[in-house]
Amino acid sequence: MRIELSRAGGKPLPLQISEALGQRISSGLLQKGVKLPSVRKLAVSLGVSQVTVSKAYADLERRGRIVRRQGLGCFVAPLKDGKQEAGDYREGSAGLPSDRSSGGGNFWDREDGGSRSPGRSALQKEADARRKFGWQEDYGDYLPRAQLWRNFDYSEAEYSFHLAAIHSGLLPLKEIGEAMTMLVAKRPELMSVYGNFQGDLGLREVMTTHLKARGIPLSAASLMITSGTQQGIDLVARTFVGPGDTVYLEAPSYTGAIDVYAGRGAEMISVPMDQDGMRIDLLTKLCDRRPPKLIYTVPTFQNPSGVTMSMERRQRLLELARSYRCLIVEDDPFSDLYFYSPPPSSIKSMDKNGHVIYMKSFSKVLAPGCRIACVAAEGDILERLIAAKAASDLGSPLLNQLAVLPFIAGKYDAYTQELRTALRSRMERAARLLKRHAPQGVKWSSPGGGLNLWLELPASVNIGELYRSASRQGISFLAGHVCYAGEPSSSHIRLSYAQMEEEQMERGLLLLMPLLKEAMNGRIM
Amino acid sequence: MRIELSRAGGKPLPLQISEALGQRISSGLLQKGVKLPSVRKLAVSLGVSQVTVSKAYADLERRGRIVRRQGLGCFVAPLKDGKQEAGDYREGSAGLPSDRSSGGGNFWDREDGGSRSPGRSALQKEADARRKFGWQEDYGDYLPRAQLWRNFDYSEAEYSFHLAAIHSGLLPLKEIGEAMTMLVAKRPELMSVYGNFQGDLGLREVMTTHLKARGIPLSAASLMITSGTQQGIDLVARTFVGPGDTVYLEAPSYTGAIDVYAGRGAEMISVPMDQDGMRIDLLTKLCDRRPPKLIYTVPTFQNPSGVTMSMERRQRLLELARSYRCLIVEDDPFSDLYFYSPPPSSIKSMDKNGHVIYMKSFSKVLAPGCRIACVAAEGDILERLIAAKAASDLGSPLLNQLAVLPFIAGKYDAYTQELRTALRSRMERAARLLKRHAPQGVKWSSPGGGLNLWLELPASVNIGELYRSASRQGISFLAGHVCYAGEPSSSHIRLSYAQMEEEQMERGLLLLMPLLKEAMNGRIM
Repeated sequence: MRIELSRAGGKPLPLQISEALGQRISSGLLQKGVKLPSVRKLAVSLGVSQVTVSKAYADLERRGRIVRRQGLGCFVAPLKDGKQEAGDYREGSAGLPSDRSSGGGNFWDREDGGSRSPGRSALQKEADARRKFGWQEDYGDYLPRAQLWRNFDYSEAEYSFHLAAIHSGLLPLKEIGEAMTMLVAKRPELMSVYGNFQGDLGLREVMTTHLKARGIPLSAASLMITSGTQQGIDLVARTFVGPGDTVYLEAPSYTGAIDVYAGRGAEMISVPMDQDGMRIDLLTKLCDRRPPKLIYTVPTFQNPSGVTMSMERRQRLLELARSYRCLIVEDDPFSDLYFYSPPPSSIKSMDKNGHVIYMKSFSKVLAPGCRIACVAAEGDILERLIAAKAASDLGSPLLNQLAVLPFIAGKYDAYTQELRTALRSRMERAARLLKRHAPQGVKWSSPGGGLNLWLELPASVNIGELYRSASRQGISFLAGHVCYAGEPSSSHIRLSYAQMEEEQMERGLLLLMPLLKEAMNGRIM
Repeated sequence: MRIELSRAGGKPLPLQISEALGQRISSGLLQKGVKLPSVRKLAVSLGVSQVTVSKAYADLERRGRIVRRQGLGCFVAPLKDGKQEAGDYREGSAGLPSDRSSGGGNFWDREDGGSRSPGRSALQKEADARRKFGWQEDYGDYLPRAQLWRNFDYSEAEYSFHLAAIHSGLLPLKEIGEAMTMLVAKRPELMSVYGNFQGDLGLREVMTTHLKARGIPLSAASLMITSGTQQGIDLVARTFVGPGDTVYLEAPSYTGAIDVYAGRGAEMISVPMDQDGMRIDLLTKLCDRRPPKLIYTVPTFQNPSGVTMSMERRQRLLELARSYRCLIVEDDPFSDLYFYSPPPSSIKSMDKNGHVIYMKSFSKVLAPGCRIACVAAEGDILERLIAAKAASDLGSPLLNQLAVLPFIAGKYDAYTQELRTALRSRMERAARLLKRHAPQGVKWSSPGGGLNLWLELPASVNIGELYRSASRQGISFLAGHVCYAGEPSSSHIRLSYAQMEEEQMERGLLLLMPLLKEAMNGRIM
């Protein structure tokens, strides 16, 4: 176990340690029953005093994350009913691969209230695994957080609200499939070559037209193709962010980005938002104390909150990056999916000095399984990213790149126009339904675009319990706490209204509402 | 600029600094004409004395990597004719994206002896870029080495010996293409889903049969699908290797692995080989001084040397990993491509305690453009890798995974049997041709399998010059020095005989031989 401590920042060391351990527990990386290192051992390995580690363990114990057994040491606690603890526990699978063979599945799905207690053979297997692979517990890793892994894996949920994805019935799969079939027939050699690390030149050229129309007049030389925006975020982080570097991001933010920056040992500082997006006034003050290495933002129909950053704040954010000579990652999955009026211009469109790395997923809107996104960066920054891309996978599959090319070249705009209408209809239906059936005390605001509704529940609701009762009815959603760096409590949930057929989505919401009411009534409000 | 210094190891700090800067220069990450930080500034940022930095700069100057200009500072030198300097220089492209729009191309291709001098507009562009993006020069990164990027990008070489890949005419592209067409027609929704982070369960099950037949009886739960082995190597490194960790590997080794470990700030220690592979006796002694965090090996038909590790050494290596409680990465691209007798069993097949992470590329042998490899690991190790995979790209494209499934399930063994015959014929033709036409003083041994010939040239040969003269005739090869960690000189070149049609390969070799002779005669032997 390896914990990145910042001695410069204001956060006390015991809190840093307990948060780091708590995150590993929430991420499923430290499992129920695993013994923590002794106070002395951890103190030595972290280079801190034993008092510091004792305080951290006491905090974890107080929060019910670990259990102290006199004379034996501290152990990761089984699931508590506390909100943040939800999903922190997997039945009888510590170090055992057998659970994985089910083909993924959200971990929370497996818990169903403890009804599946491990049989003798499972316990035997667990003991076997401990004996054989016990050395691995001490084998240090650099993986402090893995909420993506825990919360976004393939799910069999009948009513899947957890993933910000578009239902296959709305996607142009026929056209893209035809392009793929044609390529395979006419240019089979595409399957035999690695292609260019930077991505196919033809596809990059098509993307330039697209970006130009959106105020970003870059040449193909300034673009790189990545296997989805997730890879783009990851490549930027591995290239430019390291231990102790300060990364600013909105609170809440995209889980996948938080996982990545945590993995780089960055100091993440969350900046609150209001209806105009990230509070640049607060950001400016925070930067005075800790200069930014990088600022990550989803300025348009933010994930998960749906908020759009105002034009004025976009300008001020860019100014700030210029004065601190740092990078902004502008993650833009949703700007083409507006429902009423087009959002403000991208930050990249105002960037004159290469401070903004702009990321746009194409596959999210066209065919997520193709994993095609575009990263635009200028100057020397892009070359370094291409070098990192080479080391990470030798380039994205060429066939997938070329299969989306004709559609992006010819039909993208007409298609997204239709898609906007369809998504708006879904969002409005979902919002109407919530308005009519959601229990009093639930708050949300209808987004101007994108795929998500961000619901605030009364603070008393136990989101973990709600998750499990929903799960029993085949309903999945995203618990809000995974959208924050660190370990704050959150009484939000994210519902994506685009992942199912419209009627299915409605049925799912109608099923969810009574559960919500139940969860709210089960507690003092 | 960020340099990872090890204060524990035996290597003097000035040497560490000059090697780190030298590697950045060789990797194209610090370009001709770029000004290095002042001695004082670098000393402060690295926390070393100015004397240390001065010594490092003096060493770089002595080796011709940098030029000192009185009163102005130190600058990255233009291309020298020294062997290691070959390819260290790109004409007029410092920070300029325009060169990239050509769609990649090996950097060395562009140099053709300085004949393309930058015109006025290029210089103007360069000045513009400096002015606009100048701040980026000081923006620190974590990318110390990028030889993959420099040496393996898409090349237009007519005679391409540089890439260890199989010519499309030998690959089962028709079958895989048919499978892809069928999938697109019957299951278009595959393009719309993210799939499981761990990889498709069906494909993993097919792979288990394959591995079982090779003495690795693991279940699908112990396998993960990655976008090529490169990604597997990268995921293991990002999860388990960090600054100061010691990674042992063969000398020479696979460039792509060296880039990755360098990127993690690891201390790499190269272990010499003999005809039985890695010298485990030496490794054992080295480990006494610096315990291993991870050992990377390509034990079968090693890349680039072609050497196969003996059974006895495989056992001793595994013993060593057990006693040090560390991981071995067993990279196995070539074991199915033996020419005479099957190679010894894999190290993984003897592993009882989850010390070996076994990696097998399927796409390399079937359809490299599909980017499908398998990573096998046991215990808790694999879960951590899946979590890292999620953060790096949300999973490999499902369509590509399923397109290779039927072929691996049904025809793989019959196919590789034929492939072995075809590759053996190529290798033997190449070896015959070398025997007849290679100048005296060139040494090699015919490999028992795989795709590469590893040639040792007399130490006096200027490989950079040879590369350029070959390049002018449309011939590409891999210069040996990129296969070593650090900055040693090497008088090897790697020729891959499988990337072209057999006749083309022969013609290429026949064209290369006189150039080799010329390069050898041009120098005192």
